[in-house]
Amino acid sequence: MTDIDPIAQRAAEAAAPYAAVAPARRAAALVSVADALDAAASDLICVAMGETGLSEARLTGEVRRTSGQLRLFAEVVVDGGYLDARIDEADPDYAIGARPDVRRVLEPVGPVLNFAASNFPFAFSVAGGDSAAALAAGCPLIVKAHSGHPELSRRTAAVVAAALADAGMPDGVFQLVEGQQAGVDLLEDDRIRAGAFTGSTHVGRMLADIAAARPRPIPFFGELGSVNPVYVTAAAAASEADLVSGFVASVSGSAGQLCTKPGFLFVPQGADLGDVRAAVADIEAHRLLNPGIGRGYAQRRDAVLGAPGVRVLAEGTVREENGQRFATPTVVEVDLETLRAHRDELLDETFGPLSIIVRYPDAAALPDVHRDLFPGNLTATLHATDADAGDVRDLVDALAATSGRVLFGGWPTGVSVTSAMQHGGPFPATTTDATSVGTAAITRFLRGVSYQNAPQSLLPPALRDDNPWDVPQHRRAAGASQRWGSLTGAI
Amino acid sequence: MTDIDPIAQRAAEAAAPYAAVAPARRAAALVSVADALDAAASDLICVAMGETGLSEARLTGEVRRTSGQLRLFAEVVVDGGYLDARIDEADPDYAIGARPDVRRVLEPVGPVLNFAASNFPFAFSVAGGDSAAALAAGCPLIVKAHSGHPELSRRTAAVVAAALADAGMPDGVFQLVEGQQAGVDLLEDDRIRAGAFTGSTHVGRMLADIAAARPRPIPFFGELGSVNPVYVTAAAAASEADLVSGFVASVSGSAGQLCTKPGFLFVPQGADLGDVRAAVADIEAHRLLNPGIGRGYAQRRDAVLGAPGVRVLAEGTVREENGQRFATPTVVEVDLETLRAHRDELLDETFGPLSIIVRYPDAAALPDVHRDLFPGNLTATLHATDADAGDVRDLVDALAATSGRVLFGGWPTGVSVTSAMQHGGPFPATTTDATSVGTAAITRFLRGVSYQNAPQSLLPPALRDDNPWDVPQHRRAAGASQRWGSLTGAI
Repeated sequence: MTDIDPIAQRAAEAAAPYAAVAPARRAAALVSVADALDAAASDLICVAMGETGLSEARLTGEVRRTSGQLRLFAEVVVDGGYLDARIDEADPDYAIGARPDVRRVLEPVGPVLNFAASNFPFAFSVAGGDSAAALAAGCPLIVKAHSGHPELSRRTAAVVAAALADAGMPDGVFQLVEGQQAGVDLLEDDRIRAGAFTGSTHVGRMLADIAAARPRPIPFFGELGSVNPVYVTAAAAASEADLVSGFVASVSGSAGQLCTKPGFLFVPQGADLGDVRAAVADIEAHRLLNPGIGRGYAQRRDAVLGAPGVRVLAEGTVREENGQRFATPTVVEVDLETLRAHRDELLDETFGPLSIIVRYPDAAALPDVHRDLFPGNLTATLHATDADAGDVRDLVDALAATSGRVLFGGWPTGVSVTSAMQHGGPFPATTTDATSVGTAAITRFLRGVSYQNAPQSLLPPALRDDNPWDVPQHRRAAGASQRWGSLTGAI
Repeated sequence: MTDIDPIAQRAAEAAAPYAAVAPARRAAALVSVADALDAAASDLICVAMGETGLSEARLTGEVRRTSGQLRLFAEVVVDGGYLDARIDEADPDYAIGARPDVRRVLEPVGPVLNFAASNFPFAFSVAGGDSAAALAAGCPLIVKAHSGHPELSRRTAAVVAAALADAGMPDGVFQLVEGQQAGVDLLEDDRIRAGAFTGSTHVGRMLADIAAARPRPIPFFGELGSVNPVYVTAAAAASEADLVSGFVASVSGSAGQLCTKPGFLFVPQGADLGDVRAAVADIEAHRLLNPGIGRGYAQRRDAVLGAPGVRVLAEGTVREENGQRFATPTVVEVDLETLRAHRDELLDETFGPLSIIVRYPDAAALPDVHRDLFPGNLTATLHATDADAGDVRDLVDALAATSGRVLFGGWPTGVSVTSAMQHGGPFPATTTDATSVGTAAITRFLRGVSYQNAPQSLLPPALRDDNPWDVPQHRRAAGASQRWGSLTGAI
């Protein structure tokens, strides 16, 4: 059993010195980690292939994404806009009453515990997006390794730890733990100030409940389940020649083990989709990540295939070999009424290469159908033509109200890591509405602190008048509320 | 018993139409509410005086603050910066892989339930800061009235509802409910998307637990307890002639029933504070808000007075009259070692005009003392002189790590409502680290939504290229990562 006490203590002791590291040095450390990962990529990918069954091409792209997002966060740190530095100068004539000099900046929350995911052994694991965001925010990080790729986790951790040490970061800024109990014990430790998680709804909810039940609760940013419905209008179904091939590619990539895999494709009754069986015929069997996920997929697939009213378009296969399961895509079809009648059997996420085509009779009913069936998802996608634009407004509103990302054409898999990405939506997509991908993810690990009438020498650098870090400062001078007057004409 | 179903339903049905109201119209509605409150102020203040025992001067200032913060949020809405609109143009050569056009904006979370406070019958009640923030964010609002001022709550609600209706806001945007059970039932209702609360640690934690335990959990922004320690250096104690008078005024204002009342004043052993008893002698008895709070104060005061090692500097009084209690300030003194030894009796918040002066032997130990005793507060204050600046750096770091606002001189009561204010800190100050005062409070009721490859006609106005709302847009053009290259030299 892991003694988590010294681990939590090291992280706690690293909090103040790491928070004090100047942005340029912190950014350089993130870039060092990125460079070290790239340098170690071929060895790490070899280990990852054995432990996860994912392909070399997929893992090569994933390492590129992982080091790339570390560099992207380095850029964010140097830019400093994420600090949301606000300076309100003292104003004896302020409309609500004389105000002092008040300045506010976002500061790191302290030690962060990140539960790594199984399905992205790089991009959502030891050096993945949550880790990059926490380190960029200035928080000491403890990663709980996923049991699906233990050796890769250890090797990646060694690369990360060495790069951070070489860059002069304080001891205790990065640590790795293994085992469920160690993870739970740390999550319950008062020194841990925030949690992050990517995984199943069942486990994520259990951990979120632990975080909320602590004597001092902490925020827990969990990315749980999502089925990512895709809606196709009649005009789009008639005009998109590559609709089914694109769908099948999105469902089967990485054996469907992606949080953004399209689990439902809504097409009009009567629309001709061509030969779905033929579209999947050439896709080779892909190993599922580990025996537990393989077993879960086989059971869930059996349940879907056995549900009343389900028509099999491409049955696919699941075969077992040396304890691992290998699968080819399964695509089934149901009528909308069948889906609604058997929602308990059919609506849950299937983690693997299975998707359900839903035949709908009336496009006008889709906004209500969507709100009813899909209250929380990472993504929702609309395939429409220019001619549909006037008719889909309500559906787009419904998708935006229930999802973190709304796509117009294309497929939800392949999440771009950018400043405008939102990867998080209403529960169960995430436990909060925060994003775990893209630069906005950094705000999860920050909290606001105001300084009132502080002398310049005791202000954080980002709030000082001489602005030594050259960060964007939102300054509000005395009497500077121009719009105020025009809105009120009174004060 | 209140049937909450139609209330939740009205709020849910108002969500989409209210979110679609253009910023200028929503801002105008907030200003209309502010104007209506100001116009009704004298009547409302009269009711409030009877129900709360607070003075006319205090309540007059509070109405000014309440209408002022509605106007401040109107300004925020028109400015549009709070939307954090981000536009990443498509870039086939993006370093992490070809990216689509991705745009992200913060959108209202949906119906918000706000539990009003007892001690600010205007500024943290029906039309208070949480309400203003939710309405400004574009969220339908349900206020659970505080039982301490029911008639004022109803009359304020009538003013707010009429002003919103006159301004053409959708039905269901604002509703008032009364009774604990109605509040709990609504908090458990799936249609409510966020909660806000200001009150005791006991009740706030109970409600936070309910919000976290829902089948679909929601964020719950509770402001609970805070004791707001103040530290005085030897030099400041020797040089500030008005130290004790300022302290006493801050402790006794509104009978100490303020979340930012300084509960502890740390002064060096041997420093001469003068005659504390004389400083409070002229302060008249002030009614406590309601019988429950009066009873709680009397019990808590007895416990402090009875704790071992407590020296009474000004005993104060608590007398009962017609079921209400009236109090004059009580000030006691302990040695630091006594406080540490009897922390269970002494550290809890006393809601009322009582404060504890702590005599410390060694200024160098204060950072550790503070971290140990006060892990979560709304505020922490330092009284020091210019000559101390080099010696207090560690203490300032400790205060910032555990508090939402750090003051240099002055007193924590009298929170300024500005863009840089942080009114929220580590638990138990707040359930999350968010602020409930100032313009940053609006972000609590927003969530990010991304739009990928959307046609202009289906984008939210804040994300359109023609920017009809004239909001700040953070645009990242293809190939625009200038810093990226200099940081990495590789990609």
